[in-house]
Amino acid sequence: MSQYRTFTAADAVEYAKQFGGVDDPSTLVSAEEIGDGNLNLVFKIYDNQGKSRVVVKQALPYVRCVGESWPLTLDRARLEAQTLVEHYKHCPQHTVQITHYDAELAVMVMEDLSSHRIWRGELVQGVYYPEASRQLGEYLAQTLFHTSDFILHPHQKKAEVARFINPEMCEITEDLFFNDPYTDHERNKYPEALEPLVASLRHDDALRIAVAGLKHRFFANAEALLHGDIHSGSIFVADGSLKAIDAEFGYFGPIGFDVGTALGNLLINYCGLPGLLAPREAADGREQRLSDVRDVWIAFAHRFLELAEAKTTDVAMAYPGYAQAFLRKVWADTIGYCGTELIRRTVGMSHVADMKLIKDEAMRTECIRNAITLGRTLILAADHIEDVEALLARIRQAV
Amino acid sequence: MSQYRTFTAADAVEYAKQFGGVDDPSTLVSAEEIGDGNLNLVFKIYDNQGKSRVVVKQALPYVRCVGESWPLTLDRARLEAQTLVEHYKHCPQHTVQITHYDAELAVMVMEDLSSHRIWRGELVQGVYYPEASRQLGEYLAQTLFHTSDFILHPHQKKAEVARFINPEMCEITEDLFFNDPYTDHERNKYPEALEPLVASLRHDDALRIAVAGLKHRFFANAEALLHGDIHSGSIFVADGSLKAIDAEFGYFGPIGFDVGTALGNLLINYCGLPGLLAPREAADGREQRLSDVRDVWIAFAHRFLELAEAKTTDVAMAYPGYAQAFLRKVWADTIGYCGTELIRRTVGMSHVADMKLIKDEAMRTECIRNAITLGRTLILAADHIEDVEALLARIRQAV
Repeated sequence: MSQYRTFTAADAVEYAKQFGGVDDPSTLVSAEEIGDGNLNLVFKIYDNQGKSRVVVKQALPYVRCVGESWPLTLDRARLEAQTLVEHYKHCPQHTVQITHYDAELAVMVMEDLSSHRIWRGELVQGVYYPEASRQLGEYLAQTLFHTSDFILHPHQKKAEVARFINPEMCEITEDLFFNDPYTDHERNKYPEALEPLVASLRHDDALRIAVAGLKHRFFANAEALLHGDIHSGSIFVADGSLKAIDAEFGYFGPIGFDVGTALGNLLINYCGLPGLLAPREAADGREQRLSDVRDVWIAFAHRFLELAEAKTTDVAMAYPGYAQAFLRKVWADTIGYCGTELIRRTVGMSHVADMKLIKDEAMRTECIRNAITLGRTLILAADHIEDVEALLARIRQAV
Repeated sequence: MSQYRTFTAADAVEYAKQFGGVDDPSTLVSAEEIGDGNLNLVFKIYDNQGKSRVVVKQALPYVRCVGESWPLTLDRARLEAQTLVEHYKHCPQHTVQITHYDAELAVMVMEDLSSHRIWRGELVQGVYYPEASRQLGEYLAQTLFHTSDFILHPHQKKAEVARFINPEMCEITEDLFFNDPYTDHERNKYPEALEPLVASLRHDDALRIAVAGLKHRFFANAEALLHGDIHSGSIFVADGSLKAIDAEFGYFGPIGFDVGTALGNLLINYCGLPGLLAPREAADGREQRLSDVRDVWIAFAHRFLELAEAKTTDVAMAYPGYAQAFLRKVWADTIGYCGTELIRRTVGMSHVADMKLIKDEAMRTECIRNAITLGRTLILAADHIEDVEALLARIRQAV
């Protein structure tokens, strides 16, 4: 990657002029770096009317929020671009469009989504997008079904698995999801008052064994091309619209990981709302989140089954009833991975606004306690929760 | 592969002189083609004392038993050689030694095992090797544990998965194991009298759904570097010795596939013995086979757990109790894949001597019927058979 250099705003503008695919490139005049993520530079490119036109995203060769001491492969830009291109093929309505990618510069150009807002920010403020959950379920079903063994020719599937092998990004998940929160690790961060609860996770045999199984399946089960990090901060929403972004963790893994990550972030919000909003708004928001959880799963499962019935090419997997049987396993995985997301976002390193923005410290601690407790409950009960109604009942009971 | 040419016996001798690694290459004088398999040329190379010294094996660019109409990748020679080299690293006592491999010629040189005999031939004649089952369990545990996520660094595991992607050979298994016997396929072959039984397989919902799940896990679950075809015809035995050969189906798949294939072939023999031997010998042989099934599983599980306890490097999977929990899933897979092996060897295309050598037609039909019935029973009961003793009870009950 001899030509790699970190972009300045001026570089980003020049690049957008050349590769932005806009009709009038000479009107592009300025760039604003808006990367609030942990890993990349993100430039919004404006024209001379002050209108943002495209986005230029460049991978940095290290973890941005930690610094150059944590180097990270630039190949993740390829993996992100190719994952999004693949997902766009199958679900253009809910995937950001990538219009250009350059391996040497680890840079991609994508559609501007200024009309949208990051879903997490809206959830934290109690702004409700009633269609978002159904749309997220649709995105998950379309992208995961169309990259699965149900429909890909076995030769193509194997080639795709090889193309999307993503060791460095997977390792981050392997560590942050499945190791750190269950060990006494320096990266962990949680209120001191929760030390006894967190310490109890480390010695909970059934929990540790279940988490090991989830990690093992994350390692081994190449069921579909996952987004790999589909939390509410990787999702843009607007009225009637939802777009997934940020797929640098894309790889072939267990379908329940994506679905569980999505549900987990809705439930983190559920746990945080009493600390974020006034009591009545918080109660309404919590009901919306439970309804969102139901809608995501039902939209996902319904569409997945519909696609399986209409489009499965594998003659064995096309047998009536198999897709349903498979989805029962995905459901159990979903609950388990949902639980690990709740715990890694509260005990582990990667905290989220749903908790960080709670001003009252005692309240924040209680909200975090609830998220950890819920996460543990779900991981332990994953194989025994019959359906989404039983899940909602379990959540109400737990926190 | 411009230099590829099919070896004559003389070519094989010349090649062995050059690459056989024998101290006195000039003494090598003749070759005998002994390939009784379906896919390859196999030459035994003799010295001027009439002693066989090494084996030269060359892949043909088509399926030998079908002809040039069924082309097959020469890359399988690489996959076979690399799988055996990898397995030899972890279990030299029970893996044939590969001393040389050439990609362009799709040829490898391996140790001569003339002191050994193919296990299936011995099983068919009622010759008992009391140590073989324990040794096979040892081979399975050592090779599968050492290529699993328990011990491989995640980066290395992913690279190995890519190195051993084996689309064409996997496709043969995908078709012959999981499709043909459950559909009305021209490749199938079974006694006409069994048509009603075979037809009933095609419409058994629970069976078809279970087989679809086994096929899906064969596609997706990259748990370890499998041999991929570890039946009794891929195993050499001698007094106190056992060596696995013929690993061209090697790829990263579900551990239960290898263990189930191994057990399935012991149970085919169990089903065939009444047609092969006199009643008392057959009864003794059947008890030996059940005892072999117990010994393979116990040796495998015991060693796997011992290795997991001593050598697991993954911090999550090292948690006490996880390896046991994982082996419960492997056990269920093992029973399921064992069932599919019984059915594909009796309904599908690839029949074996354990049935083919039964002279009495009515008896042969009954033995095949028993094998099919047992296969179906095992596939359907795979998730509900507690342990190996329960399995043996189920087998005695079924046939």
